[in-house]
Amino acid sequence: MKEIRLIDVKQEILADNTNLANEIREELKREKVLMFNLMASPGSGKTSLILESAKRLKGQCRIGVIEGDIESSVDSEKIAAADMKAVQLRTGGICHLDASMIRAALDSMKLDDFDMIVVENIGNLVCPAEFDIGESLKVMILSVPEGDDKILKYPMMFSICDALVINKIDYLGLSDFNIELLKERAKKLNPKMRVFEVSCRTGEGLEAWCAWLVKKHQEFITN
Amino acid sequence: MKEIRLIDVKQEILADNTNLANEIREELKREKVLMFNLMASPGSGKTSLILESAKRLKGQCRIGVIEGDIESSVDSEKIAAADMKAVQLRTGGICHLDASMIRAALDSMKLDDFDMIVVENIGNLVCPAEFDIGESLKVMILSVPEGDDKILKYPMMFSICDALVINKIDYLGLSDFNIELLKERAKKLNPKMRVFEVSCRTGEGLEAWCAWLVKKHQEFITN
Repeated sequence: MKEIRLIDVKQEILADNTNLANEIREELKREKVLMFNLMASPGSGKTSLILESAKRLKGQCRIGVIEGDIESSVDSEKIAAADMKAVQLRTGGICHLDASMIRAALDSMKLDDFDMIVVENIGNLVCPAEFDIGESLKVMILSVPEGDDKILKYPMMFSICDALVINKIDYLGLSDFNIELLKERAKKLNPKMRVFEVSCRTGEGLEAWCAWLVKKHQEFITN
Repeated sequence: MKEIRLIDVKQEILADNTNLANEIREELKREKVLMFNLMASPGSGKTSLILESAKRLKGQCRIGVIEGDIESSVDSEKIAAADMKAVQLRTGGICHLDASMIRAALDSMKLDDFDMIVVENIGNLVCPAEFDIGESLKVMILSVPEGDDKILKYPMMFSICDALVINKIDYLGLSDFNIELLKERAKKLNPKMRVFEVSCRTGEGLEAWCAWLVKKHQEFITN
Protein backbone atom coordinates (compact mmCIF):
# COMPACT_ATOMS: atom_id res chain seq x y z
CA MET A 1 0.00 0.00 0.00
CA LYS A 2 2.61 2.46 1.17
CA GLU A 3 4.80 1.80 -1.83
CA ILE A 4 2.01 2.10 -4.38
CA ARG A 5 0.97 5.46 -2.99
CA LEU A 6 4.54 6.73 -3.15
CA ILE A 7 4.93 5.69 -6.77
CA ASP A 8 1.67 7.38 -7.79
CA VAL A 9 2.75 10.69 -6.33
CA LYS A 10 6.18 10.33 -7.85
CA GLN A 11 4.83 9.64 -11.34
CA GLU A 12 2.59 12.68 -11.15
CA ILE A 13 5.40 14.92 -9.99
CA LEU A 14 7.71 13.58 -12.68
CA ALA A 15 5.08 14.30 -15.37
CA ASP A 16 4.59 17.90 -14.16
CA ASN A 17 8.35 18.27 -14.07
CA THR A 18 8.79 17.02 -17.63
CA ASN A 19 6.21 19.49 -18.95
CA LEU A 20 7.98 22.39 -17.34
CA ALA A 21 11.37 21.07 -18.50
CA ASN A 22 10.12 20.96 -22.10
CA GLU A 23 8.98 24.58 -21.86
CA ILE A 24 12.40 25.62 -20.56
CA ARG A 25 14.15 23.67 -23.33
CA GLU A 26 12.07 25.38 -26.02
CA GLU A 27 12.70 28.82 -24.57
CA LEU A 28 16.46 28.26 -24.37
CA LYS A 29 16.44 26.97 -27.94
CA ARG A 30 14.75 30.17 -29.13
CA GLU A 31 17.26 32.24 -27.16
CA LYS A 32 20.17 30.16 -28.50
CA VAL A 33 21.47 29.38 -25.01
CA LEU A 34 22.81 25.86 -24.58
CA MET A 35 22.16 24.59 -21.05
CA PHE A 36 23.92 21.53 -19.75
CA ASN A 37 23.28 19.53 -16.62
CA LEU A 38 26.48 18.55 -14.81
CA MET A 39 26.04 15.62 -12.44
CA ALA A 40 28.45 13.65 -10.24
CA SER A 41 29.24 12.41 -6.73
CA PRO A 42 30.28 14.90 -4.06
CA GLY A 43 33.88 15.96 -4.53
CA SER A 44 34.37 14.64 -8.06
CA GLY A 45 35.40 18.07 -9.36
CA LYS A 46 32.23 19.66 -10.78
CA THR A 47 33.12 23.21 -9.76
CA SER A 48 36.75 22.74 -10.85
CA LEU A 49 35.63 21.53 -14.28
CA ILE A 50 33.39 24.58 -14.69
CA LEU A 51 36.16 26.98 -13.65
CA GLU A 52 38.82 25.34 -15.84
CA SER A 53 36.50 25.15 -18.86
CA ALA A 54 35.46 28.80 -18.50
CA LYS A 55 39.10 29.86 -18.37
CA ARG A 56 39.78 28.09 -21.69
CA LEU A 57 36.57 29.28 -23.36
CA LYS A 58 36.98 32.95 -22.42
CA GLY A 59 36.26 35.15 -25.42
CA GLN A 60 34.70 32.23 -27.33
CA CYS A 61 31.68 31.57 -25.20
CA ARG A 62 29.87 33.50 -22.44
CA ILE A 63 29.13 30.99 -19.68
CA GLY A 64 26.64 31.40 -16.84
CA VAL A 65 26.38 29.03 -13.89
CA ILE A 66 23.47 27.77 -11.81
CA GLU A 67 24.86 26.20 -8.63
CA GLY A 68 22.71 23.64 -6.87
CA ASP A 69 23.52 22.84 -3.26
CA ILE A 70 21.62 21.52 -0.28
CA GLU A 71 23.30 24.07 1.94
CA SER A 72 26.04 26.71 1.70
CA SER A 73 27.18 28.93 -1.14
CA VAL A 74 30.79 27.72 -1.23
CA ASP A 75 30.65 26.91 -4.94
CA SER A 76 28.92 30.05 -6.19
CA GLU A 77 31.47 32.11 -4.25
CA LYS A 78 34.24 30.31 -6.15
CA ILE A 79 32.46 30.98 -9.45
CA ALA A 80 31.92 34.65 -8.59
CA ALA A 81 35.58 34.97 -7.58
CA ALA A 82 36.43 33.92 -11.15
CA ASP A 83 34.34 36.84 -12.44
CA MET A 84 31.56 34.63 -13.74
CA LYS A 85 27.86 35.10 -13.16
CA ALA A 86 26.37 32.50 -10.84
CA VAL A 87 22.95 31.89 -9.32
CA GLN A 88 22.93 29.78 -6.17
CA LEU A 89 20.00 27.43 -5.59
CA ARG A 90 19.76 26.06 -2.06
CA THR A 91 17.45 23.07 -1.91
CA GLY A 92 17.38 22.83 1.90
CA GLY A 93 17.53 19.05 2.02
CA ILE A 94 16.25 18.03 -1.41
CA CYS A 95 18.69 15.68 -3.09
CA HIS A 96 18.31 16.79 -6.72
CA LEU A 97 17.39 19.83 -8.81
CA ASP A 98 14.11 19.90 -10.72
CA ALA A 99 12.67 22.03 -13.51
CA SER A 100 10.82 24.43 -11.18
CA MET A 101 14.08 25.32 -9.41
CA ILE A 102 15.78 25.95 -12.76
CA ARG A 103 12.79 28.07 -13.83
CA ALA A 104 13.31 30.26 -10.76
CA ALA A 105 17.04 30.55 -11.44
CA LEU A 106 16.55 31.43 -15.13
CA ASP A 107 13.98 34.08 -14.19
CA SER A 108 16.70 35.86 -12.26
CA MET A 109 19.18 35.78 -15.19
CA LYS A 110 19.37 37.84 -18.37
CA LEU A 111 19.52 35.17 -21.07
CA ASP A 112 21.00 37.63 -23.62
CA ASP A 113 24.18 37.64 -21.53
CA PHE A 114 24.95 33.98 -22.16
CA ASP A 115 25.81 31.46 -24.88
CA MET A 116 25.90 28.59 -22.45
CA ILE A 117 24.53 27.88 -18.97
CA VAL A 118 26.05 25.14 -16.82
CA VAL A 119 23.89 23.71 -14.07
CA GLU A 120 25.94 22.15 -11.30
CA ASN A 121 23.53 19.62 -9.83
CA ILE A 122 23.55 18.27 -6.23
CA GLY A 123 26.44 15.87 -5.58
CA ASN A 124 24.60 12.58 -5.97
CA LEU A 125 24.85 9.77 -8.55
CA VAL A 126 21.26 8.64 -8.02
CA CYS A 127 18.37 11.10 -7.78
CA PRO A 128 19.47 13.83 -10.24
CA ALA A 129 19.42 11.21 -13.02
CA GLU A 130 15.62 11.02 -12.73
CA PHE A 131 14.78 14.71 -13.16
CA ASP A 132 14.73 16.50 -16.49
CA ILE A 133 15.63 20.15 -15.84
CA GLY A 134 15.19 21.38 -19.41
CA GLU A 135 18.81 20.89 -20.38
CA SER A 136 19.99 20.02 -23.89
CA LEU A 137 23.05 18.07 -22.74
CA LYS A 138 23.62 15.81 -19.77
CA VAL A 139 27.22 15.43 -18.62
CA MET A 140 28.57 13.38 -15.72
CA ILE A 141 31.93 13.30 -14.01
CA LEU A 142 33.47 10.21 -12.46
CA SER A 143 36.68 10.88 -10.58
CA VAL A 144 39.40 8.25 -10.38
CA PRO A 145 39.43 7.95 -6.55
CA GLU A 146 35.76 6.86 -6.66
CA GLY A 147 36.72 3.60 -8.37
CA ASP A 148 35.99 2.02 -11.74
CA ASP A 149 33.01 -0.04 -10.50
CA LYS A 150 30.60 2.88 -10.18
CA ILE A 151 29.10 2.12 -13.59
CA LEU A 152 27.91 -1.23 -12.23
CA LYS A 153 26.36 0.37 -9.16
CA TYR A 154 24.79 3.50 -10.63
CA PRO A 155 23.98 2.42 -14.20
CA MET A 156 21.10 4.85 -14.71
CA MET A 157 23.34 7.92 -14.49
CA PHE A 158 25.84 6.44 -16.96
CA SER A 159 23.07 5.40 -19.34
CA ILE A 160 21.46 8.84 -19.74
CA CYS A 161 24.51 11.07 -20.23
CA ASP A 162 25.85 12.53 -23.49
CA ALA A 163 29.36 12.75 -22.08
CA LEU A 164 31.36 11.15 -19.28
CA VAL A 165 34.31 13.16 -18.00
CA ILE A 166 36.77 10.97 -16.11
CA ASN A 167 38.45 13.49 -13.80
CA LYS A 168 41.57 13.30 -11.58
CA ILE A 169 43.46 11.07 -14.04
CA ASP A 170 46.63 12.29 -12.29
CA TYR A 171 45.56 9.87 -9.50
CA LEU A 172 45.57 6.85 -11.85
CA GLY A 173 48.99 5.56 -10.81
CA LEU A 174 47.90 5.53 -7.16
CA SER A 175 45.04 3.11 -7.51
CA ASP A 176 43.84 -0.01 -9.29
CA PHE A 177 41.36 2.02 -11.36
CA ASN A 178 41.07 0.24 -14.72
CA ILE A 179 40.23 2.95 -17.22
CA GLU A 180 40.08 0.60 -20.22
CA LEU A 181 37.59 -1.68 -18.44
CA LEU A 182 35.45 1.34 -17.52
CA LYS A 183 35.45 2.61 -21.10
CA GLU A 184 34.52 -0.83 -22.39
CA ARG A 185 31.58 -1.07 -19.98
CA ALA A 186 30.50 2.48 -20.81
CA LYS A 187 30.53 1.68 -24.51
CA LYS A 188 28.29 -1.33 -23.94
CA LEU A 189 25.83 0.50 -21.68
CA ASN A 190 25.66 3.77 -23.62
CA PRO A 191 27.43 3.62 -27.01
CA LYS A 192 26.61 7.26 -27.84
CA MET A 193 28.27 8.70 -24.73
CA ARG A 194 31.54 10.56 -25.41
CA VAL A 195 34.28 9.84 -22.88
CA PHE A 196 36.92 12.43 -21.89
CA GLU A 197 39.92 11.79 -19.66
CA VAL A 198 40.99 14.93 -17.81
CA SER A 199 42.75 16.31 -14.80
CA CYS A 200 41.42 19.68 -13.67
CA ARG A 201 44.55 20.01 -11.56
CA THR A 202 47.17 19.48 -14.27
CA GLY A 203 44.98 20.62 -17.18
CA GLU A 204 45.51 17.38 -19.09
CA GLY A 205 42.69 16.54 -21.49
CA LEU A 206 40.77 19.78 -21.01
CA GLU A 207 41.41 21.04 -24.55
CA ALA A 208 39.55 18.10 -26.12
CA TRP A 209 36.67 18.50 -23.68
CA CYS A 210 36.35 22.24 -24.38
CA ALA A 211 36.55 21.69 -28.14
CA TRP A 212 33.64 19.24 -27.85
CA LEU A 213 31.60 21.80 -25.86
CA VAL A 214 32.19 24.45 -28.53
CA LYS A 215 31.21 21.99 -31.25
CA LYS A 216 28.02 21.10 -29.36
CA HIS A 217 27.20 24.78 -28.98
CA GLN A 218 27.70 25.34 -32.72
CA GLU A 219 25.41 22.41 -33.56
CA PHE A 220 22.84 23.69 -31.08
CA ILE A 221 22.58 27.17 -32.55
CA THR A 222 22.61 26.07 -36.19
CA ASN A 223 20.19 23.12 -36.03
CA MET B 1 -0.12 21.99 -3.89
CA LYS B 2 2.28 19.48 -5.37
CA GLU B 3 4.86 20.16 -2.75
CA ILE B 4 2.45 19.90 0.19
CA ARG B 5 1.18 16.54 -0.99
CA LEU B 6 4.71 15.25 -1.34
CA ILE B 7 5.61 16.28 2.19
CA ASP B 8 2.52 14.63 3.67
CA VAL B 9 3.33 11.30 2.09
CA LYS B 10 6.94 11.60 3.13
CA GLN B 11 6.05 12.32 6.77
CA GLU B 12 3.74 9.32 6.88
CA ILE B 13 6.34 7.04 5.35
CA LEU B 14 9.01 8.32 7.71
CA ALA B 15 6.73 7.68 10.71
CA ASP B 16 6.01 4.10 9.59
CA ASN B 17 9.71 3.63 8.99
CA THR B 18 10.64 4.88 12.47
CA ASN B 19 8.19 2.48 14.14
CA LEU B 20 9.67 -0.49 12.31
CA ALA B 21 13.21 0.76 13.01
CA ASN B 22 12.45 0.90 16.74
CA GLU B 23 11.22 -2.69 16.69
CA ILE B 24 14.40 -3.80 14.93
CA ARG B 25 16.55 -1.89 17.43
CA GLU B 26 14.81 -3.55 20.40
CA GLU B 27 15.15 -7.02 18.89
CA LEU B 28 18.87 -6.54 18.18
CA LYS B 29 19.34 -5.23 21.74
CA ARG B 30 17.75 -8.40 23.15
CA GLU B 31 19.92 -10.53 20.87
CA LYS B 32 23.03 -8.51 21.81
CA VAL B 33 23.88 -7.76 18.17
CA LEU B 34 25.24 -4.28 17.55
CA MET B 35 24.15 -3.01 14.14
CA PHE B 36 25.82 0.02 12.60
CA ASN B 37 24.80 2.04 9.58
CA LEU B 38 27.78 2.94 7.36
CA MET B 39 27.08 5.90 5.07
CA ALA B 40 29.23 7.81 2.54
CA SER B 41 29.58 9.02 -1.03
CA PRO B 42 30.19 6.51 -3.81
CA GLY B 43 33.80 5.34 -3.81
CA SER B 44 34.78 6.65 -0.38
CA GLY B 45 35.90 3.21 0.79
CA LYS B 46 32.91 1.69 2.62
CA THR B 47 33.58 -1.88 1.50
CA SER B 48 37.32 -1.48 2.10
CA LEU B 49 36.70 -0.24 5.66
CA ILE B 50 34.46 -3.24 6.36
CA LEU B 51 37.01 -5.69 4.97
CA GLU B 52 39.97 -4.12 6.78
CA SER B 53 38.06 -3.88 10.08
CA ALA B 54 36.91 -7.50 9.87
CA LYS B 55 40.49 -8.65 9.27
CA ARG B 56 41.63 -6.89 12.45
CA LEU B 57 38.64 -8.01 14.55
CA LYS B 58 38.83 -11.68 13.57
CA GLY B 59 38.48 -13.86 16.66
CA GLN B 60 37.23 -10.92 18.75
CA CYS B 61 33.99 -10.16 17.02
CA ARG B 62 31.79 -12.05 14.53
CA ILE B 63 30.74 -9.55 11.88
CA GLY B 64 27.89 -9.92 9.38
CA VAL B 65 27.30 -7.54 6.49
CA ILE B 66 24.19 -6.20 4.80
CA GLU B 67 25.17 -4.67 1.47
CA GLY B 68 22.86 -2.06 -0.01
CA ASP B 69 23.21 -1.29 -3.70
CA ILE B 70 20.97 0.09 -6.39
CA GLU B 71 22.27 -2.49 -8.82
CA SER B 72 24.96 -5.21 -8.93
CA SER B 73 26.41 -7.47 -6.26
CA VAL B 74 30.02 -6.34 -6.65
CA ASP B 75 30.41 -5.52 -2.96
CA SER B 76 28.77 -8.61 -1.49
CA GLU B 77 31.01 -10.73 -3.72
CA LYS B 78 34.05 -9.00 -2.21
CA ILE B 79 32.70 -9.62 1.30
CA ALA B 80 31.96 -13.28 0.53
CA ALA B 81 35.45 -13.68 -0.95
CA ALA B 82 36.79 -12.65 2.47
CA ASP B 83 34.82 -15.52 4.05
CA MET B 84 32.29 -13.25 5.70
CA LYS B 85 28.53 -13.62 5.60
CA ALA B 86 26.82 -10.99 3.46
CA VAL B 87 23.24 -10.32 2.42
CA GLN B 88 22.85 -8.20 -0.71
CA LEU B 89 19.92 -5.78 -0.91
CA ARG B 90 19.26 -4.40 -4.38
CA THR B 91 17.01 -1.37 -4.26
CA GLY B 92 16.45 -1.13 -8.02
CA GLY B 93 16.67 2.66 -8.16
CA ILE B 94 15.87 3.70 -4.59
CA CYS B 95 18.57 5.99 -3.24
CA HIS B 96 18.64 4.88 0.41
CA LEU B 97 17.94 1.85 2.62
CA ASP B 98 14.94 1.86 4.93
CA ALA B 99 13.82 -0.23 7.89
CA SER B 100 11.63 -2.57 5.83
CA MET B 101 14.60 -3.54 3.66
CA ILE B 102 16.72 -4.21 6.75
CA ARG B 103 13.85 -6.27 8.22
CA ALA B 104 13.90 -8.47 5.10
CA ALA B 105 17.68 -8.85 5.29
CA LEU B 106 17.67 -9.71 9.01
CA ASP B 107 14.93 -12.30 8.43
CA SER B 108 17.33 -14.14 6.16
CA MET B 109 20.18 -14.11 8.74
CA LYS B 110 20.74 -16.17 11.90
CA LEU B 111 21.32 -13.49 14.53
CA ASP B 112 23.06 -16.00 16.87
CA ASP B 113 25.93 -16.09 14.38
CA PHE B 114 26.87 -12.44 14.89
CA ASP B 115 28.13 -9.94 17.46
CA MET B 116 27.97 -7.08 15.03
CA ILE B 117 26.17 -6.33 11.77
CA VAL B 118 27.45 -3.64 9.44
CA VAL B 119 24.98 -2.16 6.98
CA GLU B 120 26.69 -0.64 3.96
CA ASN B 121 24.16 1.94 2.81
CA ILE B 122 23.75 3.29 -0.75
CA GLY B 123 26.59 5.62 -1.79
CA ASN B 124 24.88 8.95 -1.17
CA LEU B 125 25.53 11.75 1.35
CA VAL B 126 21.93 12.98 1.29
CA CYS B 127 18.97 10.58 1.45
CA PRO B 128 20.34 7.82 3.73
CA ALA B 129 20.71 10.43 6.50
CA GLU B 130 16.91 10.72 6.71
CA PHE B 131 16.03 7.06 7.24
CA ASP B 132 16.38 5.26 10.56
CA ILE B 133 17.11 1.59 9.80
CA GLY B 134 17.11 0.36 13.41
CA GLU B 135 20.85 0.78 13.89
CA SER B 136 22.49 1.64 17.21
CA LEU B 137 25.42 3.50 15.67
CA LYS B 138 25.65 5.76 12.64
CA VAL B 139 29.06 6.05 11.04
CA MET B 140 30.07 8.06 7.99
CA ILE B 141 33.18 8.07 5.84
CA LEU B 142 34.58 11.13 4.10
CA SER B 143 37.51 10.38 1.82
CA VAL B 144 40.23 12.96 1.24
CA PRO B 145 39.76 13.24 -2.56
CA GLU B 146 36.16 14.42 -1.96
CA GLY B 147 37.41 17.66 -0.40
CA ASP B 148 37.16 19.25 3.04
CA ASP B 149 34.10 21.39 2.20
CA LYS B 150 31.61 18.51 2.20
CA ILE B 151 30.58 19.31 5.77
CA LEU B 152 29.29 22.69 4.55
CA LYS B 153 27.33 21.13 1.72
CA TYR B 154 25.89 18.02 3.39
CA PRO B 155 25.58 19.12 7.04
CA MET B 156 22.73 16.75 7.93
CA MET B 157 24.86 13.65 7.42
CA PHE B 158 27.69 15.07 9.53
CA SER B 159 25.27 16.18 12.26
CA ILE B 160 23.66 12.76 12.89
CA CYS B 161 26.70 10.47 12.98
CA ASP B 162 28.41 8.98 16.02
CA ALA B 163 31.70 8.67 14.16
CA LEU B 164 33.36 10.23 11.14
CA VAL B 165 36.06 8.15 9.48
CA ILE B 166 38.31 10.29 7.28
CA ASN B 167 39.63 7.73 4.78
CA LYS B 168 42.42 7.86 2.18
CA ILE B 169 44.67 10.04 4.36
CA ASP B 170 47.55 8.74 2.20
CA TYR B 171 46.17 11.21 -0.43
CA LEU B 172 46.56 14.20 1.91
CA GLY B 173 49.85 15.42 0.42
CA LEU B 174 48.31 15.48 -3.06
CA SER B 175 45.56 17.97 -2.35
CA ASP B 176 44.67 21.10 -0.43
CA PHE B 177 42.43 19.12 1.95
CA ASN B 178 42.63 20.92 5.31
CA ILE B 179 42.07 18.23 7.92
CA GLU B 180 42.36 20.58 10.90
CA LEU B 181 39.71 22.91 9.46
CA LEU B 182 37.41 19.95 8.82
CA LYS B 183 37.83 18.68 12.39
CA GLU B 184 37.17 22.14 13.78
CA ARG B 185 33.94 22.45 11.76
CA ALA B 186 32.90 18.93 12.73
CA LYS B 187 33.44 19.72 16.40
CA LYS B 188 31.21 22.77 16.12
CA LEU B 189 28.44 21.00 14.21
CA ASN B 190 28.43 17.74 16.17
CA PRO B 191 30.63 17.85 19.28
CA LYS B 192 29.86 14.22 20.24
CA MET B 193 31.06 12.76 16.93
CA ARG B 194 34.35 10.83 17.17
CA VAL B 195 36.76 11.47 14.31
CA PHE B 196 39.18 8.84 13.00
CA GLU B 197 41.88 9.40 10.40
CA VAL B 198 42.62 6.25 8.43
CA SER B 199 43.95 4.82 5.21
CA CYS B 200 42.40 1.50 4.28
CA ARG B 201 45.21 1.08 1.77
CA THR B 202 48.17 1.55 4.12
CA GLY B 203 46.38 0.45 7.30
CA GLU B 204 47.21 3.68 9.12
CA GLY B 205 44.76 4.58 11.86
CA LEU B 206 42.71 1.40 11.63
CA GLU B 207 43.77 0.12 15.08
CA ALA B 208 42.21 3.11 16.86
CA TRP B 209 39.01 2.78 14.83
CA CYS B 210 38.71 -0.95 15.56
CA ALA B 211 39.41 -0.41 19.26
CA TRP B 212 36.53 2.09 19.36
CA LEU B 213 34.20 -0.40 17.66
CA VAL B 214 35.09 -3.08 20.24
CA LYS B 215 34.51 -0.59 23.06
CA LYS B 216 31.13 0.38 21.59
CA HIS B 217 30.18 -3.30 21.33
CA GLN B 218 31.17 -3.87 24.98
CA GLU B 219 29.08 -0.90 26.11
CA PHE B 220 26.18 -2.11 23.99
CA ILE B 221 26.02 -5.60 25.48
CA THR B 222 26.56 -4.48 29.09
CA ASN B 223 24.22 -1.47 29.25
